[in-house]
Amino acid sequence: MTTCKAFGACEAHADLTPMHIERRALREHDVAIDIDYCGICHSDAHAVHNDWGTTVYPCVPGHEIVGRVSAVGAHVTRYKPGDRVAVGCLVDSCQACPSCEGGQEQNCAKGPTATYNGKDRHTGETTLGGYSERIVVREQFVLRVPDALDVRYAGPLLCAGITVWTPLRRYGVGEGSKIAVVGLGGLGHMAVKLAVALGAEVTVITTSASKADDARALGASDVLLSKDPKAMQAAANRFDFILDTIPTRHNVNPYLMLLGRNGVLVLVGALEPLEAVHGALLVINNRSIAGSLIGGLPATQELLDFCAEHNVLPDCEIVDVHEINTAFTRMQANDVKYRFVIDMATLHDVKTD
Amino acid sequence: MTTCKAFGACEAHADLTPMHIERRALREHDVAIDIDYCGICHSDAHAVHNDWGTTVYPCVPGHEIVGRVSAVGAHVTRYKPGDRVAVGCLVDSCQACPSCEGGQEQNCAKGPTATYNGKDRHTGETTLGGYSERIVVREQFVLRVPDALDVRYAGPLLCAGITVWTPLRRYGVGEGSKIAVVGLGGLGHMAVKLAVALGAEVTVITTSASKADDARALGASDVLLSKDPKAMQAAANRFDFILDTIPTRHNVNPYLMLLGRNGVLVLVGALEPLEAVHGALLVINNRSIAGSLIGGLPATQELLDFCAEHNVLPDCEIVDVHEINTAFTRMQANDVKYRFVIDMATLHDVKTD
Repeated sequence: MTTCKAFGACEAHADLTPMHIERRALREHDVAIDIDYCGICHSDAHAVHNDWGTTVYPCVPGHEIVGRVSAVGAHVTRYKPGDRVAVGCLVDSCQACPSCEGGQEQNCAKGPTATYNGKDRHTGETTLGGYSERIVVREQFVLRVPDALDVRYAGPLLCAGITVWTPLRRYGVGEGSKIAVVGLGGLGHMAVKLAVALGAEVTVITTSASKADDARALGASDVLLSKDPKAMQAAANRFDFILDTIPTRHNVNPYLMLLGRNGVLVLVGALEPLEAVHGALLVINNRSIAGSLIGGLPATQELLDFCAEHNVLPDCEIVDVHEINTAFTRMQANDVKYRFVIDMATLHDVKTD
Repeated sequence: MTTCKAFGACEAHADLTPMHIERRALREHDVAIDIDYCGICHSDAHAVHNDWGTTVYPCVPGHEIVGRVSAVGAHVTRYKPGDRVAVGCLVDSCQACPSCEGGQEQNCAKGPTATYNGKDRHTGETTLGGYSERIVVREQFVLRVPDALDVRYAGPLLCAGITVWTPLRRYGVGEGSKIAVVGLGGLGHMAVKLAVALGAEVTVITTSASKADDARALGASDVLLSKDPKAMQAAANRFDFILDTIPTRHNVNPYLMLLGRNGVLVLVGALEPLEAVHGALLVINNRSIAGSLIGGLPATQELLDFCAEHNVLPDCEIVDVHEINTAFTRMQANDVKYRFVIDMATLHDVKTD
């Protein structure tokens, strides 16, 4: 065991405070990582606040982790000290079920181990995340950060990025695709950039006319205001694919109408009951609503490599570690374009008890 | 124009009565058909009752038509008098849009022409269906009935059959598939037979324990009672594909839970708002809800050929034409296993005004 500095919450709705945490000694297949940057994800706030009723305290969030290898276990073959690496939402899984064997570890039949607030498969201890100096992770769950990728901005690819990348790839979005992205936040802005880089024609659907310029700056060729019934009517049957990033209960029927034959609307944000879906909107045109959960390890590595090759990066605001609580408040007020990343080097000067 | 006998309704909720109707003179690409059998579909009752508010009277229903060619237009190449043929839910479409070119005429961008209560693309007149002696149909919308197929039972393949065949084929159901069929009526019983013939392992999900024996007799290997919470819990994540034939508003969440990774639930019956779908049930396991509308001409021909080859036929009760109104009443009370077919030869003796 080794001790390191971290920021975490000791109870629901409390501010994040500096603390010392223990990291496990290296197992044979483990990689120890010095963390340089960690993105701030909406789910970090949900976990800290215990919105899902499953948080174990103290809770150290953070699953958009970028750093350098400091040491490796005896049987590690893929990494060596000094390598630039990343860790996303998962740090372990059964590695034996069809999902794991198919590189879909997020759907592990026995449940994957989350990077924080998960349960270590060996010790049963609660996992602690990336708002910390160091982390120790099983080799299979460590990703390689290509040299061409700017490490300061890579963090949000590990959650926001892979969450939208998985359905874009699953449904073959690319040259010739006409797609729409609903919502222009952390996930939505990544979806626009990635889909444009894949060659798709991208429309942003938003309630807010003020976001039109931003959407076009990100690469969208069109903007559709969901509150404009005439514009929505005129766009009926227009899209092959819609990525719906709205994170709360909402009405998907107006978006379903925009899908052409065999069109698919993919939910990535709303983890609660939707307003009543109209069956006829699915039956007509053989439309679908699908859900998608983050992504597996191979897809995440593919995403990092794609972003390095195509120079696609999230728009981030980099904050010092002492600004975490302010960043949480601003994130929850949608006051960020589009993602916060913590510069973990600033943790070195923080005093802990 | 030629006159023929038919059964139709003159106003909403009235009984079907004998009447004379006009059939158009043969156009160059038309096939004239003497009708031998016509299946009774639930949508016939909805149309006659004007449940959807779109019925034009007099309404002659019937879109599960089996008969023989009596004459062909000058440019018809595929059929000759005496050929055994069938007509389903569609009698025309634009034949130029991507859906039509892809053999998905039911999703024609300009709207397909329904076999009854549709609008003729040339004359604008309301189309009249198969509860009649004869029909005249554009060659492209006429199907060939293989010799090996029992014409008495072929009718319901044209609507009930193709409605379930399309999603079974779209989602690759076959050897190794574990599927469930929800509801054991006209559509459900066909889905069980077809999926079993395709090699799938089929479970029937029903509210009624009394249907278990029937389900097994149709080929189902298992029966799951949706009102048994323990059995439903034990079946979590079990299926690759669920065909949901429930024709009214209902709660799909208990069925979604039964789908494994990338599993799909296909709605074919519910043309109304569903109870609130829980987004998390879609996101976890990357599940989908899709809709599916009847099927295109190539798929319908494939189905007829498959059923002839594999000796798959709907379970039908054959009725005389003067029993139509009783059959409607019984059908709406679910008092039929599983589909009525009208023997149109009995129409010859009916007196009309």
